[in-house]
Amino acid sequence: METQTTGPKRTGGRSAAVIHNVRTAVEELVKERGRDRVTVPLVAERAGVNPTSIYRRWGDLPTLINDIATYHLDPERELPHSGSLQDDLTEWAREIVAHYRKPVNAALLRGGAANAGDRESDCLRNRRLEATMFLDRADAAGITPDDIVDHVVAPIIYRVIFQPWTLTDQTAEDLVSRLFA
Amino acid sequence: METQTTGPKRTGGRSAAVIHNVRTAVEELVKERGRDRVTVPLVAERAGVNPTSIYRRWGDLPTLINDIATYHLDPERELPHSGSLQDDLTEWAREIVAHYRKPVNAALLRGGAANAGDRESDCLRNRRLEATMFLDRADAAGITPDDIVDHVVAPIIYRVIFQPWTLTDQTAEDLVSRLFA
Repeated sequence: METQTTGPKRTGGRSAAVIHNVRTAVEELVKERGRDRVTVPLVAERAGVNPTSIYRRWGDLPTLINDIATYHLDPERELPHSGSLQDDLTEWAREIVAHYRKPVNAALLRGGAANAGDRESDCLRNRRLEATMFLDRADAAGITPDDIVDHVVAPIIYRVIFQPWTLTDQTAEDLVSRLFA
Repeated sequence: METQTTGPKRTGGRSAAVIHNVRTAVEELVKERGRDRVTVPLVAERAGVNPTSIYRRWGDLPTLINDIATYHLDPERELPHSGSLQDDLTEWAREIVAHYRKPVNAALLRGGAANAGDRESDCLRNRRLEATMFLDRADAAGITPDDIVDHVVAPIIYRVIFQPWTLTDQTAEDLVSRLFA
């Protein structure tokens, strides 16, 4: 499954194909077997890559699960751009909620949480970058990226992990309105 | 180590002693070996109880880690009671921050997060009960228990899991001030 196209190390060509295939394999296997019964050799077989490619890039399974869990909300996707900061943040928060309402994504997040902590995860960095982009292009009225992480992202992630049954579209709207109250 | 005192099933006597010993054993072993190298037989040996007592009460290791992680902030402890809701919540949030700045408590929380999701954890229930108690005895000015969970507890727990290096005493104070802003 590895193409011979050359390209930037992480964003195109051969590496991108490996990342894509490994990511898809992890998602499928977590959905089929549950996170605790996924192994690197299983992922490698499903992705059509050599296990050593996985060990070389990710080191071990917890790091792999953590990284895959955080790549999910494609940082290259188009962000809402309506002209209203509150509307855009609401739409963005809805995307995050919709993403984590899928059980496989919640399972990957929980697996990632267990192994997080020593450095900023890609997921956190990407969400913070997106928050900064929203604020940069609007009158942010004193709202900072930290405010968005603390009061929109954190409550969503907390619910995903500890009380997923409370996560609704209304959650996104309520959290963002409170930020502007 | 099991005493013969009779008492309520979970809060006194023999059961309380078992819970206490098992809890202490899990904390020590997580600190010494890391969460991934703790097993039920090791916990049983350290706690001086039969492994079957652990399996009967908790079912399996993930459930045990989850329960132990959530018993930490003793729900029987005295809560701040200064006469000011904001001061009391700040003090309470500082306790939670101080608790999770200890690496063993953060490790237990991450282990618990990996296995949470299908029911409300004791930790979450206890913090929500405490939030409700604070609000009941003061003029809550429109603040709800959900607000406290979303905007004080969730950002703390999110930082513990994903960016522990950002957790300071100032975090507690800032989150609570924002709730009253």
